[in-house]
Amino acid sequence: MANHDALPLVILTEQFASLPGIGMKSAARLAYHVMSMSTEDVETFAQALLNAKKTVHFCRCCENLTDQELCPICDDLTRDRSVICVVETPKDISAFERTGEYRGVYHVLHGLISPLKGVMPDDLRIRSLVRRVQNGGVDEVIMATNPTVEGDATAAYISQLIKPLGVKVTRLAFGLPVGGTLEFADEVTLYKALENRNDM
Amino acid sequence: MANHDALPLVILTEQFASLPGIGMKSAARLAYHVMSMSTEDVETFAQALLNAKKTVHFCRCCENLTDQELCPICDDLTRDRSVICVVETPKDISAFERTGEYRGVYHVLHGLISPLKGVMPDDLRIRSLVRRVQNGGVDEVIMATNPTVEGDATAAYISQLIKPLGVKVTRLAFGLPVGGTLEFADEVTLYKALENRNDM
Repeated sequence: MANHDALPLVILTEQFASLPGIGMKSAARLAYHVMSMSTEDVETFAQALLNAKKTVHFCRCCENLTDQELCPICDDLTRDRSVICVVETPKDISAFERTGEYRGVYHVLHGLISPLKGVMPDDLRIRSLVRRVQNGGVDEVIMATNPTVEGDATAAYISQLIKPLGVKVTRLAFGLPVGGTLEFADEVTLYKALENRNDM
Repeated sequence: MANHDALPLVILTEQFASLPGIGMKSAARLAYHVMSMSTEDVETFAQALLNAKKTVHFCRCCENLTDQELCPICDDLTRDRSVICVVETPKDISAFERTGEYRGVYHVLHGLISPLKGVMPDDLRIRSLVRRVQNGGVDEVIMATNPTVEGDATAAYISQLIKPLGVKVTRLAFGLPVGGTLEFADEVTLYKALENRNDM
């Protein structure tokens, strides 16, 4: 937006541009779009922002986002509390839930250990995970962080903390993606697929 | 977002997804991002939305968006009021202002005539343009709508209204984009470039 634009529009554009994945051009387009919305719709949008921020907080048990004391998964008595799947973000829970196969519970770290970005273990929700395991009833902790340097390091760090408590710690399998072809697999994935080969 | 997500988050995601160019996945990412913002930042964002919608309206003269009675361009006494550049949206004004060459004023139609989409001439800001021309002092009206079927039709329609008032009506030149190559020009553009060729 240039200096001939109305100041409130410039401010709104900057707000949109501060969101991840939205550049200045998209932000300007969104700001203009808001101008074409009805006053009622804009108020609904603003209220949705404030309301989500005000009422959504962390689940007392698994640190997932919820507007209740416990998230729906921790509150679901049919879920298997003896298996905890540890993920980086609440989004990852959605990915697992879409498979429809996992019946255990989750724990959200809200980040990965990354000394370069200044994220240390104490910045993550690791202590509440250790406490959950210490409270007993847990047989297995599945480390489901991304297969990246940071994801692997975080998984290794947490594994070291939890294994002494006598609980099985596992890591998601790495290998060829289903439907993928050898031709397009990168070397590391192919090596992992070879290393972790199974009997037929 | 799935049904295990907190309702206020689902509502916020739907709000983001209703904006142009934002799909459900991006909307979910933005909603999660809002959760990681400080309460103060979320309040600033919501306030920017409400404030822009409340204070920004149409310029009394040219229908551009402004929070004053007149937009900065109509309010600028150094601009040449004898030339009016007619554009589809306020965004188009930014494009012309970036060239730094145009010193006339503008008129924003807020759309193009499109019977298929149910947009008729009365839905656009055409009457206020005719009134401006009738008030006198205008020598030229430049039709700067996009070179599309709807843009051409709108330009032709407005031209028919304004020409009888004794004012020169012009259309933006069509031709090869500067820096473009013949190889990649489409047939219609090349034909227009040939038809409108200039003496050297």
